Amino acid sequence: MKVNLSEAFSRFSEHWSPRVAADLNGQQVKLVKFQGEFVWHKHDHEDEMFLVHRGRFTMEFRGRSVELREGEFLVVPRGVEHRPVADHEVEVVLFEPAATLNTGDAADPRTVRDLKRI
Amino acid sequence: MKVNLSEAFSRFSEHWSPRVAADLNGQQVKLVKFQGEFVWHKHDHEDEMFLVHRGRFTMEFRGRSVELREGEFLVVPRGVEHRPVADHEVEVVLFEPAATLNTGDAADPRTVRDLKRI
Repeated sequence: MKVNLSEAFSRFSEHWSPRVAADLNGQQVKLVKFQGEFVWHKHDHEDEMFLVHRGRFTMEFRGRSVELREGEFLVVPRGVEHRPVADHEVEVVLFEPAATLNTGDAADPRTVRDLKRI
Repeated sequence: MKVNLSEAFSRFSEHWSPRVAADLNGQQVKLVKFQGEFVWHKHDHEDEMFLVHRGRFTMEFRGRSVELREGEFLVVPRGVEHRPVADHEVEVVLFEPAATLNTGDAADPRTVRDLKRI
């Protein structure tokens, strides 16, 4: 019933492929590993929270960027274009509606429609 | 725009009084410090997530309990009676609907109706 984040992250290695760790109130807690540059995208109807569990990454917005380190989080409001970039592998906890697609409105081969569970 | 959890927790000291750290999708991220025994309660319509940022505590249920340490989380489903107990101060991140009352269906002097923001 409880989830240990470090243990859960150790169970998968793919980058950019979120795993569902919990469901609540129509939302999901998802665990994802980033490495490299993702695709620019937005979510028209969903806000998205990124909490760094281990490592660091940069959230790029059009015209600015925010660096997130372990124990820091950010909410990307709906409609705002963003792109995560990670020089090294980073472990990130996402909180967002269950329906949120990882690549939002972008056409990208990394789109994952049926998320695996942890 | 970003929140550093350790820095945000350092801004308040009251126990059992959640602070709102972010809003998204009708949900809120709340930061709370527990110490001692809370009141038995449930939330009839809301699931509630508890993620330990620092320290440890025990979530008691009727007939069993779960110990949560740093980097571990638990979702308490709606309708399930629970009571957090912390021998020492613990810092906990909550993820739940904005409308969730800390004491749920219990009458308790620690009920907080208008949460402060971080």
